[in-house]
Amino acid sequence: MDFIEVVNKRMSIRAFDKEKNKKISDEVILELLELAIKAPSAGNLQSWEFIIVKDQETKNRLARAALNQRFVAEGSHLIVACANQELSATVYGNRGWDLYSIQDVTAAIMILLLGVTNIGLGACWVGAFREPEVREILGIPQGVKPVALIPIGYPKKVAEKSPPRKNLKYKLHFEKY
Amino acid sequence: MDFIEVVNKRMSIRAFDKEKNKKISDEVILELLELAIKAPSAGNLQSWEFIIVKDQETKNRLARAALNQRFVAEGSHLIVACANQELSATVYGNRGWDLYSIQDVTAAIMILLLGVTNIGLGACWVGAFREPEVREILGIPQGVKPVALIPIGYPKKVAEKSPPRKNLKYKLHFEKY
Repeated sequence: MDFIEVVNKRMSIRAFDKEKNKKISDEVILELLELAIKAPSAGNLQSWEFIIVKDQETKNRLARAALNQRFVAEGSHLIVACANQELSATVYGNRGWDLYSIQDVTAAIMILLLGVTNIGLGACWVGAFREPEVREILGIPQGVKPVALIPIGYPKKVAEKSPPRKNLKYKLHFEKY
Repeated sequence: MDFIEVVNKRMSIRAFDKEKNKKISDEVILELLELAIKAPSAGNLQSWEFIIVKDQETKNRLARAALNQRFVAEGSHLIVACANQELSATVYGNRGWDLYSIQDVTAAIMILLLGVTNIGLGACWVGAFREPEVREILGIPQGVKPVALIPIGYPKKVAEKSPPRKNLKYKLHFEKY
């Protein structure tokens, strides 16, 4: 699909088609992640990690940890995107821990979401979850921070619309803040 | 351009064509930013801000603050992407300040970089800079954090190649970390 069209079409999908979801193979998800890791990263450290969750009971537990957002469990695959803070900090110290590792994985997430749209699937970037609970469910060690839960599946309905953006001029400054 | 092609072609450009740069209008940059803000954001707060710098002396000062990376001053436009931490924190507290605001602007940056590639321009995401110095040069207040300096211009040579990625399998986990 044309790049501009993909950007315009992408939106948060919060309802998935359970039947159609069965057609989504692991290969499709892996290809999306291969694309995602073409994102740039600080010092090319690639301080991202991804946990692919398919087990329904684990997805249910993660949905509960995500403040009971039920749709989190309803994709075919749930990607848990993590920042490897320790990895980036080995080279960049605090700036790697607090900033670069978060940015690395976030850049990859953005490509992932666009890639999902490009092949007619839907996804939602869920940032609202109880981090200690997600860590516990998935056995994520200190030094690695889960930053997003991303259910992927066939969109059930596309009646949803992207929320409006504030006019760019309110976010812009020229030459100085 | 096709989405996949854009993702594959995007790379960090660190040398710009000064002559050709003159052809890049402000409108082109504004269109790129309009595209960038189609990124999702936590609670649709859109906690991103952008400073567009064209003044050569300001660009030079920012390049010095960026650990003397000379090319930072050599695009036609230098975008300083900022996280409005205060805005996100008003709704989400610490998680907004530390995480969501950084993610919001980073997602927008990723679309910006792809958008630049899509129209045959080049850019580089520069994260290595002395933050207090950048704040001082641009008058950025507390509560707003500059996270990236992004020079945009015509690529001088495309002999550069994207650095290799680690095999995805080293970044992947199935069902558990």
